[in-house]
Amino acid sequence: MITLTPTLDKTSGQPLYLQLYAYIRDEIEAGAIPAGDKLPAILALSAHLKVSKNTVETAYQQLVAEGYAESRSRSGLYALPVEEPPHAPPSGKRKHPQGRRGTAAPPFSPSPDASGIAFDFRYGDVEMERFPMGAWRRCLLEALNDSNQRRVLDYGHPQGEEELRSEIAGYLYQSRGIPCTASQIVLCAGTQHSVSMMCQLIPLRGMRVALEDPGYNGVRTSLYGHGCELVHVPLDADGIQVDRLYDTDASAVYITPSHQFPLGMVLPIQRRNKLLQWANERNGLIIEDDYDSEFRYVGQPIPALKAMDHNDRVIYMGTLSKSFLPAARLSYIVLPEPIARSVREKLVLYSQPVSPLIQQAMLRFMREGFFGRHVRKMRRLYQLKHRALLAALQRHMGARIEIIGQKAGLHLLIDVKAGIPSAGLIDLASKVGIRVYSPAVQWSTPSQCPPSYIMLGFGGLNEYTIDEAVGRLAGAWFKDYDEVN
Amino acid sequence: MITLTPTLDKTSGQPLYLQLYAYIRDEIEAGAIPAGDKLPAILALSAHLKVSKNTVETAYQQLVAEGYAESRSRSGLYALPVEEPPHAPPSGKRKHPQGRRGTAAPPFSPSPDASGIAFDFRYGDVEMERFPMGAWRRCLLEALNDSNQRRVLDYGHPQGEEELRSEIAGYLYQSRGIPCTASQIVLCAGTQHSVSMMCQLIPLRGMRVALEDPGYNGVRTSLYGHGCELVHVPLDADGIQVDRLYDTDASAVYITPSHQFPLGMVLPIQRRNKLLQWANERNGLIIEDDYDSEFRYVGQPIPALKAMDHNDRVIYMGTLSKSFLPAARLSYIVLPEPIARSVREKLVLYSQPVSPLIQQAMLRFMREGFFGRHVRKMRRLYQLKHRALLAALQRHMGARIEIIGQKAGLHLLIDVKAGIPSAGLIDLASKVGIRVYSPAVQWSTPSQCPPSYIMLGFGGLNEYTIDEAVGRLAGAWFKDYDEVN
Repeated sequence: MITLTPTLDKTSGQPLYLQLYAYIRDEIEAGAIPAGDKLPAILALSAHLKVSKNTVETAYQQLVAEGYAESRSRSGLYALPVEEPPHAPPSGKRKHPQGRRGTAAPPFSPSPDASGIAFDFRYGDVEMERFPMGAWRRCLLEALNDSNQRRVLDYGHPQGEEELRSEIAGYLYQSRGIPCTASQIVLCAGTQHSVSMMCQLIPLRGMRVALEDPGYNGVRTSLYGHGCELVHVPLDADGIQVDRLYDTDASAVYITPSHQFPLGMVLPIQRRNKLLQWANERNGLIIEDDYDSEFRYVGQPIPALKAMDHNDRVIYMGTLSKSFLPAARLSYIVLPEPIARSVREKLVLYSQPVSPLIQQAMLRFMREGFFGRHVRKMRRLYQLKHRALLAALQRHMGARIEIIGQKAGLHLLIDVKAGIPSAGLIDLASKVGIRVYSPAVQWSTPSQCPPSYIMLGFGGLNEYTIDEAVGRLAGAWFKDYDEVN
Repeated sequence: MITLTPTLDKTSGQPLYLQLYAYIRDEIEAGAIPAGDKLPAILALSAHLKVSKNTVETAYQQLVAEGYAESRSRSGLYALPVEEPPHAPPSGKRKHPQGRRGTAAPPFSPSPDASGIAFDFRYGDVEMERFPMGAWRRCLLEALNDSNQRRVLDYGHPQGEEELRSEIAGYLYQSRGIPCTASQIVLCAGTQHSVSMMCQLIPLRGMRVALEDPGYNGVRTSLYGHGCELVHVPLDADGIQVDRLYDTDASAVYITPSHQFPLGMVLPIQRRNKLLQWANERNGLIIEDDYDSEFRYVGQPIPALKAMDHNDRVIYMGTLSKSFLPAARLSYIVLPEPIARSVREKLVLYSQPVSPLIQQAMLRFMREGFFGRHVRKMRRLYQLKHRALLAALQRHMGARIEIIGQKAGLHLLIDVKAGIPSAGLIDLASKVGIRVYSPAVQWSTPSQCPPSYIMLGFGGLNEYTIDEAVGRLAGAWFKDYDEVN
């Protein structure tokens, strides 16, 4: 029997179950708990650590959900083998990388596309080469063969299939500490559609809505398209300036607290409390967009603002585009119960836009554990890509750039000190087969974006070829690059 | 070689190709042109009938699209066998009907559901027992196996996949005489989402929009939810009163000209011209909802208003929920080119809500001819159901009801002369295991709906058991029913 000796800190603000979960996860990943070993029984461990039975149970559920352990009936929990992370290919084989397990060369990169682009740093791209197509196909087929054919032929429930909403509620509780029920969730067809439904049903429409500036322009577009009056609130190094929010008469604020888009900072706990206080004092709504919360590489996971919301002030928005697949076109909003009640009444007059077939397949994908495993695998993979990108930027560009927002997510901003505005940088990059982007559209007034900012989305790139891409970029951008390197 | 002698009327307003197509279709259905027989060559027939080559060609394309004929390469067009319509079961076997071909008893009706309801006249239900699940499954699998995996994994084109839009454009031209290109089409996720996108992109939002009263409340809800100012225009026996529309200062009108929802009348040609004239004089927009145009049983097909639109005044809305499957959650809008241009620019900032997987599967379903065959099969089937419902109403209720709007679509209204308001009729029906509905929600002021109106959606019912359902209804509603029958 293995012994676990985590250091759990009850004052850290981090839930104990998450601390315990993270400890065991790291032990399994490091091999300190070998695959096949039995984990301590729940009662024994709770007594040993002087924590509640519930804490251990929740940590174990999380481990099972993410594929680190499996439950064997009447026996207990056993550590599962952790897939090896893909390894760097032998040198000299850069162009067609093969993992140790002989996986085929990725079909998408780095061979140039028709326009001569070999590397595309587009934000929003996700890892597709290693998408679990087999499992997804199986789930779709199972859904199609559902004995209750109506479930995959008919219009479906206006809020979305109840069982899928329950799965999402469970996932949100385990991964983000958000207590909610299926009845508080409305399924939507992507973040913009989530915003559209909030505008129609809450209704945000006609309200004065505050936004982070810079902030996600897809949401800004959607709010504007529904007739909201937009108020832009500037950021400082910590994120949205709540003092400046107080200066406005906004009755709602849209915010990305876990990973500000596009600048990448995390809203500190003090600022979160202040934001919740603003909502209480002003009878305001907070719309929390937790768009890529699954992917955090440095420090503790950041609890969702919604998990701290004891006064029904926070509407939580999530998407499966990043954590699962853009083509699922699945997102969701979690409503405080008083708002959910009135929304459910209104939804009688609406039809759900997501195909019940996709919903039923997703339900199976989550229920059978594929989703938890996929998120865990992707987190490790994006961490590799993220590290590879940081290392490459350091190696090829060093002090000639500044990196902005580097702890989480699927993108970085860099401030390129080459004395060239972004249009020029983009042009120079395209000449060496690389597509990069300016983040200026995320500013309410794009000209206020520093012209030397470049946005690097790395979700769709291959970790082995990122170095090559960054090297090419450095060669294109810095005249003395070849001399120095 | 067969000879065709249709009577084509150049003054009827009905395109010649449609007259020719309908003639040949009827001949094939009647067996006058046997399966396997070769149709006349295009040039020969155009000379014989003194019509253009194009007319014959378009009629032939329509026949192929709908599965009445097939083209054999270098040989010509051949009539195809027409599936026999399902036949009434031998008497005494009413409860578990079997078609001649020994198809299994339908799984959904008439066995009562958990709430004791054996027959549900819900509007919007479609035929599901005979849905071509095999073909749809095959199309989904082919899409999943697409060699270009990005097509079914990524976000997809903001307007929808171009090839699918092209298929829809072709279908609209052949079936509704609407000339348009893929670039004028925006795919949406159901009628309400179509309306939502128009509100955001045209933008209808903030406009004063006129609606038929009564009219489809799903669209009314959606327009209202986007902040449109609604103006209700009354109907007369022919449909919307355009004179009354002139009395308003609406800048757009939403209308169901081919089959008014819910009253079922067809807007006559004079009224259509007047409506187009209103749009020209007032610089107004017409939003034509052609929601169930595929299903017309009496008289000539009604051309779409959009097909008469020479001044870019008409936005056309269609849905695949009725003609294909609710669960596809696929609809579309066709924009006049000047509007389409500005919409395409705005769509850069939007993501498409329909899963590319569903889109790619639908593309295959259309391209491989399944869709055309399905629509044709459903038209025949719904015609059987429609006839069965009319006959049953006549037989069991006779003069005690008045039937409203009986030429097309998937529903009828009846005015029940039992001296009981709809709530009572609904209650009495539920006691004999039948669910019927009041159409009152379709009126802007529901109390203005005659209380004796009942809406009967028949799309989801089985043609063999409709008579039983209507008999039960008559027994519940009319005290003297048992004595008379």
